Amino acid sequence: MGKIDIQQLNDIANHLRIDSIKMTCAAKSGHPTSSCSAAEIVATLFFNEMKIDKAFPKNPSADRFVLSKGHACPVLYAAWHQAGHISTADMMNIRKINTDLEGHPTPRLDFIDVATGSLGQGLSCAAGMAYAGKYIDKASYRVYCLLGDGECAEGSVWEAAAFASYYKLDNLVAIVDMNRLGQTQQTMLGHDAEALAKRFESFGCHTIIVDGSNVVELLNAYEIARQTRDKPTAIVAKTLKGKGIVGIEDENNWHGKPVPEDTIEAIEQRLMNKEDMIGKLQMKLPVNDAPCVRLPFGCIKMAPPEYKLGDKVATRQAYGTALAKLGDACPRIIGLDGDTKNSTFSENLLKKHPEQFVECFIAEQNLVGVAVGLQCRDRAIPFASTFAAFFTRAADQLRMAAVSFANIKCAGSHVGVSIGEDGPSQMGLEDIALFRTIPGAIVFYPSDAVAAERATELAANTRGIAFIRTGRPACPVIYNNDEKFEIGKGKIVHDASKPKALIIGAGITLYEARKAADKLQSENIEVIIMDPFTIKPLDKDLIIKSARRAENRIITVEDHYQAGGIGEAVCQAVSDQKDIHVRSLFVLDVPRSGPPDALLEKYGISAKSIVDAVHQSIHPPN
Amino acid sequence: MGKIDIQQLNDIANHLRIDSIKMTCAAKSGHPTSSCSAAEIVATLFFNEMKIDKAFPKNPSADRFVLSKGHACPVLYAAWHQAGHISTADMMNIRKINTDLEGHPTPRLDFIDVATGSLGQGLSCAAGMAYAGKYIDKASYRVYCLLGDGECAEGSVWEAAAFASYYKLDNLVAIVDMNRLGQTQQTMLGHDAEALAKRFESFGCHTIIVDGSNVVELLNAYEIARQTRDKPTAIVAKTLKGKGIVGIEDENNWHGKPVPEDTIEAIEQRLMNKEDMIGKLQMKLPVNDAPCVRLPFGCIKMAPPEYKLGDKVATRQAYGTALAKLGDACPRIIGLDGDTKNSTFSENLLKKHPEQFVECFIAEQNLVGVAVGLQCRDRAIPFASTFAAFFTRAADQLRMAAVSFANIKCAGSHVGVSIGEDGPSQMGLEDIALFRTIPGAIVFYPSDAVAAERATELAANTRGIAFIRTGRPACPVIYNNDEKFEIGKGKIVHDASKPKALIIGAGITLYEARKAADKLQSENIEVIIMDPFTIKPLDKDLIIKSARRAENRIITVEDHYQAGGIGEAVCQAVSDQKDIHVRSLFVLDVPRSGPPDALLEKYGISAKSIVDAVHQSIHPPN
Repeated sequence: MGKIDIQQLNDIANHLRIDSIKMTCAAKSGHPTSSCSAAEIVATLFFNEMKIDKAFPKNPSADRFVLSKGHACPVLYAAWHQAGHISTADMMNIRKINTDLEGHPTPRLDFIDVATGSLGQGLSCAAGMAYAGKYIDKASYRVYCLLGDGECAEGSVWEAAAFASYYKLDNLVAIVDMNRLGQTQQTMLGHDAEALAKRFESFGCHTIIVDGSNVVELLNAYEIARQTRDKPTAIVAKTLKGKGIVGIEDENNWHGKPVPEDTIEAIEQRLMNKEDMIGKLQMKLPVNDAPCVRLPFGCIKMAPPEYKLGDKVATRQAYGTALAKLGDACPRIIGLDGDTKNSTFSENLLKKHPEQFVECFIAEQNLVGVAVGLQCRDRAIPFASTFAAFFTRAADQLRMAAVSFANIKCAGSHVGVSIGEDGPSQMGLEDIALFRTIPGAIVFYPSDAVAAERATELAANTRGIAFIRTGRPACPVIYNNDEKFEIGKGKIVHDASKPKALIIGAGITLYEARKAADKLQSENIEVIIMDPFTIKPLDKDLIIKSARRAENRIITVEDHYQAGGIGEAVCQAVSDQKDIHVRSLFVLDVPRSGPPDALLEKYGISAKSIVDAVHQSIHPPN
Repeated sequence: MGKIDIQQLNDIANHLRIDSIKMTCAAKSGHPTSSCSAAEIVATLFFNEMKIDKAFPKNPSADRFVLSKGHACPVLYAAWHQAGHISTADMMNIRKINTDLEGHPTPRLDFIDVATGSLGQGLSCAAGMAYAGKYIDKASYRVYCLLGDGECAEGSVWEAAAFASYYKLDNLVAIVDMNRLGQTQQTMLGHDAEALAKRFESFGCHTIIVDGSNVVELLNAYEIARQTRDKPTAIVAKTLKGKGIVGIEDENNWHGKPVPEDTIEAIEQRLMNKEDMIGKLQMKLPVNDAPCVRLPFGCIKMAPPEYKLGDKVATRQAYGTALAKLGDACPRIIGLDGDTKNSTFSENLLKKHPEQFVECFIAEQNLVGVAVGLQCRDRAIPFASTFAAFFTRAADQLRMAAVSFANIKCAGSHVGVSIGEDGPSQMGLEDIALFRTIPGAIVFYPSDAVAAERATELAANTRGIAFIRTGRPACPVIYNNDEKFEIGKGKIVHDASKPKALIIGAGITLYEARKAADKLQSENIEVIIMDPFTIKPLDKDLIIKSARRAENRIITVEDHYQAGGIGEAVCQAVSDQKDIHVRSLFVLDVPRSGPPDALLEKYGISAKSIVDAVHQSIHPPN
């Protein structure tokens, strides 16, 4: 690289600074100082190192860039502006309601793969992309992830680093913009680049310390990274927050604030070439070696379930059976687990198609982050599984997956008190609420093995976020193998001619409801029982129609806490109806260890509690 | 220490093994192999190193022990059995519904400070205890945390290590039982103790590698730890899973399963002294130098709010004001933040009482974990604050805090679309659902500065988990400074003689409701507006009474997603009532960036949307 190129990269870096300051001044908010520290890093990546398809930024063969420090998006927007991809007018209109150039980046933009802004999440997503590149696409594209130093306090960064080194992701480069300053004070490590580098090294990365404002050092580091085999590279780039902004550079109290616009002058003076460079800069082109993939949503056909009515099968086991069969049907279905694969039965896919399975060990944040990374640019349909309770560990990653409009499937096993003796730490009791809060997510709660297989198949075939709630105990198969299931359509599993109440249960509580119905029958009280199949969307029409037939009485019963659960969803669904009464049974307190049946009884969701609730509903106490 | 003692410790370790095998055989479930690997570690800690008060295990001056690998609780129960604190009958009755000796440890037991079982959380809690010991109690007690190697894949472990070294917690010792095997396969690092030690070293710990079955090496390591200044110590103890169990030791596929009871024989043969040792073993006694603390719940009086009606103050700011005043009233009120203290206003406490504030940097899991640790044995009333959205990062820690029956207060700022331009990654839109799922938690949603101050005061004075939801925008003060607030009691903030509807709003939407009421008034439609103050518990009586007065129509409006939010809580509260209709307004989709008012409008929770909802409620479309 000649002298002229170095000067050009320095000039571009300063243009990125100027643009970052201008656009945040125009918006009257944003993060110019966090952008300025990264200007040379972004300039060298975009205009020398990375292979980019300007015309089609999501070209599957192009290099990926993840801005884990999402608040620095002005510098990223500026790079795409300098590339000629964002107009000046658009750039000066960031953060408005009518633009996709939001305050933090989201995939509404064609050059963003994953939303960022909740710190520490980008490297997991980048690792997922790199895994896809190395092992699934077997292509040459590389993945670059720019992190802040403050966010390296997030444990998820280290989960990702451990994963990346375990899987020898030498196509992954993490660059830390070590600008010393967090939002409110100096970070834990300040400017101790050696200390941070030692951490990345101990987590298995090849580590390079550079002056992050020196384009030559940066370019050399990228070159070394490209030559490094069997290890990811971490570049610790020492920088200054607000670099180049007179009076603000390296000063505290300038996080997330526009700076005076006249500070641009000093930066402009550093430009060797003051000419407009927009769109004139060369960018390296991708080598088109990633396979063309069209994910066959709606057409992934699974061999049908093969059970006999009454067979005792846990829904978690049926999930594993279905996942392995879906793996036969579609090589881009990838299973992931957090060292629970013999409990969630995701190991069935591993056994049949080892190349379609990624063990993520006990690191659920990274498990979900990697899944989000895998699904970018339609490289895979990831199915991540662990105990339902442990998806709460990744609640923030799931929240961000929604902002990323990601296509990931989560299967959570071991739900509710019905897991028994292992006790409350292992019981998923808030997972329905967690996944119901996710905009657009589908929440499957299959009650038998046939339903669980179909839920898995439907999840695979439907773009977006889906959760499949599976149980630990083996329960009888109640549906025929050819039963048709649809998202948002419930089933009446027990009907009557003169019902007094509609009971809505799912999973273990559906079986309790059936026992209750038998008991009530012996008292000449008839009930209807509904299996909702999906809790979101909920089959409101069937609920209302059935409740109307059942003297407007509904009893809901769930192995889950109250908030955000089935009961509240049903109450909400009938809230605009006249006269329908709902009585909800749920787990009220932190449960104990014990045998499943005893726990169902103790926490008021057993057949006996349902019978009592029906009695009380029919004859309310004064 | 003489030879006899070493032999005695070896004997005790083998007794712990035998007991662990026996009790899990009796329970027909549990984790004997994960217990056996840790037998010497636990034996040396309990019967030589730690200062323990058998008569009063929660003596504030005694050393703390946190079993982060909670599934290994049989070995811990065995230690307390050998100490004479748990009877043989109780030990042989673990995991039953009538015992506190659960499948994973919880503070129902007098010798447990924090519940464990969700892996990777113990070290944060231990760090909180060590912080309390060193900086708040200024006492000599030490904190020992036993981790598994598998759980070291959890990022939260590294958040805790970074925190512990930053704060020079030389009274903290982490011991990793590196038994190589996870639940389903070898861990990422297997038996590479050097690699794991390097990680702890790079995170600022003094690190020692030992043979974890060698009691002399263990005792030496504890001694070195005691002599280490200004650094926590991490002991990487190489062990074998199922150590001592013939045919099972170091074998895969033996996680979480009882082993044949006859395997005890081989272990018994290793006992030098076969006599019953129960209760005869000496344990070191604590030095009683921790101050006696009686937290004055119900009596922490804060200087009253000082606002004028109409003053524009954000509730987050009022939270900070109240927190600082509470800090005046009670030196054991400790603020914690995740590098957002100038946004959450927790910095007000830091400025006034720097010794009552702990900066936890951008690591929310550890933020909550440290808070849980601080509150153990009533050492502190911790107030943890960050953006509400980022509490989702600690959802699993919060779930476990409930299992720990912890007394922690969380204040989440920047809720909803009303934060504006920073966009969806920063917007708390599921925090009400998250905290409502926590059994027994109080969810405060103060709408003005007076209410926010009182919510903070009530949170301090009430044992348990509390969440205070605060907003970013400055809104007018609507309550007088002497207004009384109670948990579970709402307020009618706008009344009418012939109301057509009850509107329930909180925070920003309460102001939108007031604007809507003005508009409706101009159409001669009267409404009542209710401020619920706490969403959990919810003032059901006031809602029903007010709805009855308002022609049985309720409109809820919230800056939050639907699931588990105010609307669903209200629907649930009135589900047993005749004729009450509820119409709920909430944020339906992933929002965009934009000005707050434009976002309220776009996402259907503005005054205009409320007016429309009232119209539709009065005149429902066919």
